[in-house]
Amino acid sequence: MRKGVRVTPGRPVDLGGRRPGATHGLADRDEAAAAVEAAAARMAEHATRLAADARRSLLVVLQGMDASGKDGTVRRCIGALNPMMVRITSFKAPTTQELAHDFLWRVTRELPGRGQVGVFNRSHYEDVLVVRVEGLAPEEVWRPRYEAINAWERNLVSEGTAIVKIFLHISREEQAERFLQRLRDPRKNWKFNVDDLAKRERWDDYMEAYEDALQRTSTSWAPWHVVPADHKWARDAIVTEILADTLEGMDLRYPPLAPEVRAARADLEARLAAGADAG
Amino acid sequence: MRKGVRVTPGRPVDLGGRRPGATHGLADRDEAAAAVEAAAARMAEHATRLAADARRSLLVVLQGMDASGKDGTVRRCIGALNPMMVRITSFKAPTTQELAHDFLWRVTRELPGRGQVGVFNRSHYEDVLVVRVEGLAPEEVWRPRYEAINAWERNLVSEGTAIVKIFLHISREEQAERFLQRLRDPRKNWKFNVDDLAKRERWDDYMEAYEDALQRTSTSWAPWHVVPADHKWARDAIVTEILADTLEGMDLRYPPLAPEVRAARADLEARLAAGADAG
Repeated sequence: MRKGVRVTPGRPVDLGGRRPGATHGLADRDEAAAAVEAAAARMAEHATRLAADARRSLLVVLQGMDASGKDGTVRRCIGALNPMMVRITSFKAPTTQELAHDFLWRVTRELPGRGQVGVFNRSHYEDVLVVRVEGLAPEEVWRPRYEAINAWERNLVSEGTAIVKIFLHISREEQAERFLQRLRDPRKNWKFNVDDLAKRERWDDYMEAYEDALQRTSTSWAPWHVVPADHKWARDAIVTEILADTLEGMDLRYPPLAPEVRAARADLEARLAAGADAG
Repeated sequence: MRKGVRVTPGRPVDLGGRRPGATHGLADRDEAAAAVEAAAARMAEHATRLAADARRSLLVVLQGMDASGKDGTVRRCIGALNPMMVRITSFKAPTTQELAHDFLWRVTRELPGRGQVGVFNRSHYEDVLVVRVEGLAPEEVWRPRYEAINAWERNLVSEGTAIVKIFLHISREEQAERFLQRLRDPRKNWKFNVDDLAKRERWDDYMEAYEDALQRTSTSWAPWHVVPADHKWARDAIVTEILADTLEGMDLRYPPLAPEVRAARADLEARLAAGADAG
């Protein structure tokens, strides 16, 4: 994993001191593309073992401001996995039914099963981010949630899920650039939401809420990663490496040959050899 | 769409008369790879419009005997789509909760939303296939289901979903080949299920059940396609073309520029030009 990306548990987080344009040692697009390719192959191999083993799960949480590249990260990094084993959920403004439950209810329902990878595009963290900044709930409601999140994630980890939390860190300037691209290209207009501009106005409040969330919920069992996201090519390499490292660190193995499988093989081979397999 | 793949509604289906090794005019791997590439680009373009338009959905139903290549088809054909817009569900033996409901309950819950693509790896068709052949329910239970399926699918189509139903047609010989590969390769053992051999014993019963299902549920609103699947390269090309043709036929457009988006663009451009966008 690239140095400095992981948020050390217990340490204060200063997003202003982390450059969104950083590349963490990747010289250029070519070098990043080679890094993506190597990490994607590693990731795919260990993900196949995750499916084969069918005892553990991987949960990827993606957070970031509008246009920080969450969708692109899913397409470019998660897209390298076998789609059969991946379940992606985009969390929008909660529905009436979701609001009628505690804030962890809707995310719990979308957790990956054993052998699977779940991706949250936005997540339970919105309940200490947008909810806090836009005043959708009073402080006595959102304040205890950091601890609730840590306890909820700890249980998932002890039950066999590895959790990767990624904050895509873009600059306010790069966001303007990407908004304008969406606004100018008729094929990208649909990705633009007028509310995004109002949130942009509260940039500093959001950064403060993110700093608090990253600091309070980067734990030894589920640490945060701050990925510089102004350069998409660097972002893709860094995220794919984080995913590959995490899966590799789970030390997953192909299950041993079951005796009944060995017997089935001998049986099928014998039948085929004897021409006795005509249905 | 390649000629002869689509099952004409109302006509009897004779699977014995359709060659699992057919390539439908594709000369070799290279030609098929070029066809996949062309169709995948077309599919991705129209799928983006599906997401942008956000009024219609695509449902892909994949059926076939064990080792017919359902997982591979998902990986190779669906994998070309943006994973954010795709939801894949593998239906296994029903759970206690699922059995406590009518047979369309569990599939209804997994239908794609507007702007999305849903993929069913096995589906409600198992309720007239495995259920019939293995005698899991009496005939008076499974017999009325063909009509129920047609009515259910008709409603989905009239509400805006396009339905693509694909039967992957492999030969009994090719299945033996693929089973042996799984049984001999320690990295593929986990894909093998001992019950698969019992189902193989009832091959002819399954073919009869498939013929009945294809004939009774290939409708003008949701036709079946019989895709020869002994050659994976031909299968990939034919399936990708079916998906591309279906999406293209939905005549999807990017939505027109909303007035508030035009206003937002002017606003953001003016603020940036005036240096008035400092947060």
